[in-house]
Amino acid sequence: MTETIERNGNERLYLEDFFPGRRFTSGTHTLDEAQIKAFAREFDPQPFHLDNSAAQDSLFAGLAASGWHTAAITMRLQVESGLPISGGIIGAGGEIQWPRPTRPGDVLHVESEVLEVTPSRSRPDRGMITVRSETRNQREEVVQILTVKIVVPRRDLATAETTET
Amino acid sequence: MTETIERNGNERLYLEDFFPGRRFTSGTHTLDEAQIKAFAREFDPQPFHLDNSAAQDSLFAGLAASGWHTAAITMRLQVESGLPISGGIIGAGGEIQWPRPTRPGDVLHVESEVLEVTPSRSRPDRGMITVRSETRNQREEVVQILTVKIVVPRRDLATAETTET
Repeated sequence: MTETIERNGNERLYLEDFFPGRRFTSGTHTLDEAQIKAFAREFDPQPFHLDNSAAQDSLFAGLAASGWHTAAITMRLQVESGLPISGGIIGAGGEIQWPRPTRPGDVLHVESEVLEVTPSRSRPDRGMITVRSETRNQREEVVQILTVKIVVPRRDLATAETTET
Repeated sequence: MTETIERNGNERLYLEDFFPGRRFTSGTHTLDEAQIKAFAREFDPQPFHLDNSAAQDSLFAGLAASGWHTAAITMRLQVESGLPISGGIIGAGGEIQWPRPTRPGDVLHVESEVLEVTPSRSRPDRGMITVRSETRNQREEVVQILTVKIVVPRRDLATAETTET
C-alpha cells in the first residue's frame, strides 16, 4: 500500500503524473495542548477545545482539537510534504469527516490516494484530480477523512504557455 | 428570508427548536492582509496566500485567504453568533465548497438554513441536524458553502438526565 513510484524530493507533479491508486504519505506533526487551545481561542472558542475540565464533561470526554484545526494541520502537511503538486494545492471543495477526536500529544500524518484524474475539456492547460486523504494519529487511527478536488496544471501545455488562463 | 422566530440573545437551542427552513444569520468578521498571511504561514504556506506579487500571477489573480482560513472564520462566527446550540457546535462532518476566493478587506458573515432534523434512534437524549451555511462577503457573494451534520441535545431529556451518554 506504499507509493511504488520513486520521485525526487523536490520534484513537482503535473496532471500527467497522477493516476487512480497513486498514493502519497506526508511527514508528521505533533499536536500539543497549547496549540489546541491557541487555535480554539482564535477560531473555535468552545469549552471542550479550551478547558480541560469542561472537556472532560463534554461529548469528547477530554480536551479535543477543533475539527478545523485538524483540517488546517492536514493542509500544512500536504503543502510541505504530502502532495507535491506543481502550482500548489488549490482545492475547489470536497467532503470532510472527523470520525474521532484529535488529542494533545497526537502525532499526525496524512495518507492520500488519487481516486480520479480528469483533464479539463474547456482548459487544455489543466485538469482536476480527486484525492482522498486520511489524517491518522500515532496509532494509525483515522481522525479525519477528506475527499477533495484539486486543480492541477498539465506539464506539456503549462510549460509552453504559462500565461494562459 | 430572514429568521421569523424571535429569540432571546442568550437563549441556547435544543433539538426541539430546530425545523427544516429555520434560518440564522451571524455577526460579521473583517479580514485583512495580515490575518490572511498569518494563517497561511502557520497552516497553508503557499505563495498565493503569502505574497502579493506571487498571488497576482496565480490562478487567484491576487492575494486570497486559504480556504481553511475561511472555514475557521466561519466556525468562529457560528460559535459566537450564528448557531446558538445548547452544548455547542459539534460537527461530525460535511461538504465544503469555495466558489470564489476570500480577499483582504472582505467583511464576512454566515447565513445558515436548517435542512433536516433527525432524532437519534439509539440515544434519546440527542439528535442530528443538517445545516447549510453560506459564508458571504460584503457584496453578498458566496465564498464558502458548508453543509454539515451537527449533534444537538434534546431539551426534555438533556435537562432531566444530564449525565446520560
